[in-house]
Amino acid sequence: VEIVLFSPYDVGVMKEQNCLQFESVFIVGVGLIGGSVAAALKERGYPGAITGFGRNIDRLKKCQSVGLIDEFSTDAAILEKPDSLIIFCTPIDHITNFFQSSKVNFDKTSIITDAGSTKNSICKAAQKYLPEEMTFIGSHPIAGSEKQGFEHALSDLFQNRLCVITPDEKTDETAITSLKEFWEFLGSEVAILSPSEHDFRLAQTSHLPHLIASALAETLSPDNAQYTSTGFRDTTRISKGDPSVWIPILLDNSEAILENLAQFDSVLKKFSKAIENQDSEALKKLLEQAKTKRSHLK
Amino acid sequence: VEIVLFSPYDVGVMKEQNCLQFESVFIVGVGLIGGSVAAALKERGYPGAITGFGRNIDRLKKCQSVGLIDEFSTDAAILEKPDSLIIFCTPIDHITNFFQSSKVNFDKTSIITDAGSTKNSICKAAQKYLPEEMTFIGSHPIAGSEKQGFEHALSDLFQNRLCVITPDEKTDETAITSLKEFWEFLGSEVAILSPSEHDFRLAQTSHLPHLIASALAETLSPDNAQYTSTGFRDTTRISKGDPSVWIPILLDNSEAILENLAQFDSVLKKFSKAIENQDSEALKKLLEQAKTKRSHLK
Repeated sequence: VEIVLFSPYDVGVMKEQNCLQFESVFIVGVGLIGGSVAAALKERGYPGAITGFGRNIDRLKKCQSVGLIDEFSTDAAILEKPDSLIIFCTPIDHITNFFQSSKVNFDKTSIITDAGSTKNSICKAAQKYLPEEMTFIGSHPIAGSEKQGFEHALSDLFQNRLCVITPDEKTDETAITSLKEFWEFLGSEVAILSPSEHDFRLAQTSHLPHLIASALAETLSPDNAQYTSTGFRDTTRISKGDPSVWIPILLDNSEAILENLAQFDSVLKKFSKAIENQDSEALKKLLEQAKTKRSHLK
Repeated sequence: VEIVLFSPYDVGVMKEQNCLQFESVFIVGVGLIGGSVAAALKERGYPGAITGFGRNIDRLKKCQSVGLIDEFSTDAAILEKPDSLIIFCTPIDHITNFFQSSKVNFDKTSIITDAGSTKNSICKAAQKYLPEEMTFIGSHPIAGSEKQGFEHALSDLFQNRLCVITPDEKTDETAITSLKEFWEFLGSEVAILSPSEHDFRLAQTSHLPHLIASALAETLSPDNAQYTSTGFRDTTRISKGDPSVWIPILLDNSEAILENLAQFDSVLKKFSKAIENQDSEALKKLLEQAKTKRSHLK
């Protein structure tokens, strides 16, 4: 297991954290993200039980054998324990399906969240299908990898990254604080957005790039592969992401993505027009603007 | 100077290399690429003189003071020494301008090459403006960085990378072998293509990605910057490249680039149509094809 350990977390500080109010953490879907949540909790000395829930018992066993989770089950009734944080780390369509179809009697002292890349449909499904007394708050840790499986989990995946949480006007303030402290415990900064605003912004910063990178990779003719350099490879890296994770994201947030794609398209047309017209001044302006914007990012 | 040194090159082996037939190496433009050529030569124990030629005497002095070059001059007459390899590492428009306007009496025992990202116009300018007895062979080491300046030179920049050289039917075989061995001495594999074939293939693998990455960076609205992750950043990394390097490349190879852009565009339309139609099967096929193509690259 490639778990990268970083400087030991100060347990004295850790014990002050409200994160510890959760007596146990349930991770639904222990893949790269779920595994990284577990690794980060372990690394930072979380003293409660970390339980994996999923469908594949062999994978869950392996996950336990490498020490990422303490317990596991394929029976959803395990999620009924009180005072727990239950975090869904499956592809987003599985989350909404689970809310719609499961007969789990969640305990109302628990908080349910997720780590999905869109928030609108998940928050709506939670509102519609979960019992009214249950607290659900969407989360999106803006961190990830094109790799798949808990074998690639990283205990510092959330370290210094932003995590957006999406409560609504009715969400209990104490629950918001608890969830915020949970992500802070894992090393993240937390921002609060409405589900729709989250989805619109992430369409541009995450979903559009996935589309572009995939289209560029697909444009490559195989006999040109040997002429690619680090430039092509970095520009297309994220196209190696798992299609079963990305299909529901792209379809779920289609409206915002298509709107951002149209914007991208009109920018790209400016570039191609400048090239067609051999207009070095226009091209210079475009390249310099792009360089400036990109250079402001880390 | 951030020169990354790697395991010392076996000088016994090195002395067998024909590369040493060049009594001196002249680097025209000692930036990231030129500086990396110098660093690689030094690292591998090249015993001849490495001379920098350029316009900015202060930069050349600094370059000498950090040990990358042995000598320097801002007078082109220095390039007239016999038995030399003269390598142009400036932006491509400077190379063609130099061939057209310089009055240098190159020695016919020397070989002239370059490290530019397009080859057609440079090879044509060499043929048109250099004396007939001079040997010019275009080179394109497919390696680079979005960084600028010899301060970012890397002695292993060419290590395990492909370098395309573009001789024509009239080029002397011995000269081709010498140039090939020069790049192999720096750690590269060498491939031979015609200038036009080079330009067409690189339009897809290098120039198109630069355009796409720049357009994506330019699409970002500044208040979304905080919601970008490693995905956005990797996909747009190359847009940090120097516009003065990229403008002449994009304008010079415009025809092939626009043809490849049209191809990219039609692939992207397939993605957007699948999203618009909520067609998960079509989207799955596209994402899987892209993932497979990308996964075949390193």
